[in-house]
Parts: sequence; structure tokens; C-alpha cells
Amino acid sequence: MPYRLWYWPTIQGRGEFVRLALEAAGIDYLDCARLEGVEAMMADMETRAKAGRGPFAPPYLALDNHAVAQVANILQFLGQQHDLAPSNLADRQWINQLQLTIADCIAEVHSVHHPVAMMAYYDDQKDEAARAADQFRRERLPKYLDHFEAAARHGPTEWLVDHRWTYADTSLFQLVEGLRYMFPQRMAALESRYPALLRLRDAVADLPGIRAYLKSDRRLPFTTEGIFRHYPELDCGSRLH
Amino acid sequence: MPYRLWYWPTIQGRGEFVRLALEAAGIDYLDCARLEGVEAMMADMETRAKAGRGPFAPPYLALDNHAVAQVANILQFLGQQHDLAPSNLADRQWINQLQLTIADCIAEVHSVHHPVAMMAYYDDQKDEAARAADQFRRERLPKYLDHFEAAARHGPTEWLVDHRWTYADTSLFQLVEGLRYMFPQRMAALESRYPALLRLRDAVADLPGIRAYLKSDRRLPFTTEGIFRHYPELDCGSRLH
Repeated sequence: MPYRLWYWPTIQGRGEFVRLALEAAGIDYLDCARLEGVEAMMADMETRAKAGRGPFAPPYLALDNHAVAQVANILQFLGQQHDLAPSNLADRQWINQLQLTIADCIAEVHSVHHPVAMMAYYDDQKDEAARAADQFRRERLPKYLDHFEAAARHGPTEWLVDHRWTYADTSLFQLVEGLRYMFPQRMAALESRYPALLRLRDAVADLPGIRAYLKSDRRLPFTTEGIFRHYPELDCGSRLH
Repeated sequence: MPYRLWYWPTIQGRGEFVRLALEAAGIDYLDCARLEGVEAMMADMETRAKAGRGPFAPPYLALDNHAVAQVANILQFLGQQHDLAPSNLADRQWINQLQLTIADCIAEVHSVHHPVAMMAYYDDQKDEAARAADQFRRERLPKYLDHFEAAARHGPTEWLVDHRWTYADTSLFQLVEGLRYMFPQRMAALESRYPALLRLRDAVADLPGIRAYLKSDRRLPFTTEGIFRHYPELDCGSRLH
């Protein structure tokens, strides 16, 4: 029986980290809200909340009555069930640690375009977003990329651990892709500093499951509705950078 | 040999979630930056980064050459090593999921007083913080508390799972304490909606290890340097609420 993945149907968002691991591993799943709509997702969440242990927010992955939410938790679960994580405990902790640091970076990326009010519109907070983007581009972005470059460089091959990909590799691929979409100028200026991270990114893009996925209509495009949003004024603002 | 916990020495911050689990379980640890200073922490982080697999940021927990970072990852590690997590896989996933949702809430709390520039001063973003606090108090805070209340109500006893505390219980204690400090008026107005969560909070406060810890000088006070910050203007702003 395929897994039932529930996530917003029109964006990559946080759900994309789960989709990429499923696709890379060739695990059967249904992207339910794309098939059944957002109202079906809301109804499903409410049913699970009433039964106890409902997710706080999408994405979540369900099999029968059991649902797992939070990206890092879902990926850890898939890692255990489908041999997508290292067998060694220290390596599993490291992969989980990197995934959580990617999650922190993603949350900061979202705050760049929604600094003041998460649930309000970008247009209502453009000036503040310009200030937030300025600091993110100058300080936070290189700090995160330095960290992930060191992690990639420390890996024994092009992968982070062992001699095969794990879900943290597919997640770093998505992080690089998202940052390239959101900050094309800034990333073009920075990328030469990160050869190991880019080699890892290329190796993920070349996995058979990922190659097929990226060509399919299952891969949604980046848009200004998702977490990574390309607003040219945030890539190279008028402020010092 | 005691664990070596490294975290900023003058604040509760994210490190407090680790301290509380260690204290509740009576696990021996050294709060190293309080003993050896911030410069020693910086030097330790740099050494670990050079050896590969360094933490992105404190807190991290070290034993010999092995270091684990990211609060949810540290707590999961302690759960495995010291029987602080449920034995059942689905329960462990649920506890990890709740811990990650607590982490999301904490990140939003931090963004309330630092909406525009994480590394800049509150005084430079007070107006934006007032807008962020308004939305947080009205929408996000009740949404999170509703979720945690449902989780607490779903537990078989006063605890989230099983018949004993886990690290997600001690983390929810800290979340309630922090929110009470940061938003005393708003929390006073809301608390009657959350009886199960408050019963859980009281049960954690009554654990022998926690009782002793809260009376000791190892428990730092809440201040306006930490994650939870009490600025009266953010508790009950001039805007609609």
C-alpha cells in the first residue's frame, strides 16, 4: 500500500524534502492533496486531531491510522523503514543534526520575505523584508553554506556519510536549488566557495529517481508562493551588501 | 564521566531544554561555558569544526570526541542512552514530533522580538516587533497552545505518553514558563483554556530533580537577553488584539 503524503498541492515548500527522498528511493506514495484537494487535507487533519496525535501542520505522511509529521521526523522514519539512513548511530545523529540545521535555514529563509507577520502578505512588509534580506544575504547565508560545505567536504565520497546518498543529501540538493532560485545574483557570487556542496548537489540531481522526478510534472516549479521566493529586490537590494 | 554541555552561559535559551532533561533524570553533566567561559566554547567549536562534524551553533552535548547538536537531536540521543524516551517506536516518533513543533514555536517567539534582523538589537526593530507580537499573541500563540493542550489531553496520565515523563514533557514545562514570563497578561487571559497542559507543567515542576534544580543557582533567570523576553509593550500592544 502506498504512503499517503499530505502537503499543500501547489507549492514545493517543506513537503518537497519528503517528496525528494521518496522519489530518490523509488518509494510508492500518493501526493494526496494534489489528487484530492486542500479541503480533503483539512478534513483528514481534523479527523487525526480528534483521534489524538494530529499534525500541527503539513507535511505529514500517513499509512493507515498512523501519521508522522515534521519533515525531520518523517525523513528519520523513512530512513529507518527503507534503509535510507546510515546503520551507524553516530552517523544517523549527524544526518538528523544536518537536517535540523537545514530546517533552521529554511525557517530563516521564510522570515526574509515574511519578517513581521507570517500570515500576512509580502506586499505589506516589503520594507522590512528588504532589511531582513540584507542581513540574510550578507551574514546568515554564507554562515549556513560554510557549514554545509564543511559537512560535504568531510564526507568520504560525494555523499555526506558512507558511500551512498541519505535523505540529508537530497535535502541539501533542495536547499541549493531553492537558494539559487531566490538569490540568483548572490548565489552566483558565492558559489565558487562551495565546491563540495555543489558536487553533492550534482550527484543528487544525477540519481535515477531524481532525474526522472525533475523531468516529471510531479515536480512543481519554484514560485513566489513557496518558501523560497524570487523577489529581485531581495536578491540585490538598494542597501549595502 | 559527566557529559559536557556547551551553551551560552548567561541565558536559559535553547540550552535550557537540554538542562531540564538532564536535571530531571539526574544525569551528571558540566555546564562548560559557565565554568570555562564563552571563549573556551568558541575554541571547542572551532576544534570540532576542523575535525569535521562541528555544531552549527550551541547547544551541543559532548562526550569525548563525540558531540551532538540541535536540541531535538540531543534530547533524542539522551532518550536512547538513558531511557528517557518511550520504548515504542510510534511513541518515540510522537515525542520527537512534539519536540520539533516546540522548536518551531520557539523560533517564532524569537522572531517576535527580532523580526527584521536576528543579529541586530531589539531597539532597532521595536515597531516591527510590535506588529509581529500582535499577530503572534492573537493567532499563533493560541494555535500552538491548542495543539499542545490536545497532546496533553490525549496522554494516558498527566504525561504525554506512558505513565512517566519524557523529554517532551520537560520541554512543554519550559515553553509554558517562558510564555508566562514573556506574555504575562496574554497568558493570564488564555490559561483557563489549557487545563491538561498546565497539569503537565505542574507535574514536571514537582519532579524531584526539577524541584531541586529550580531552587538551585544552576537555573538561570529569564531575562531580556534570552529567547523569551518580557517587553511589556509586546504583551499588550496598542494595536487591536
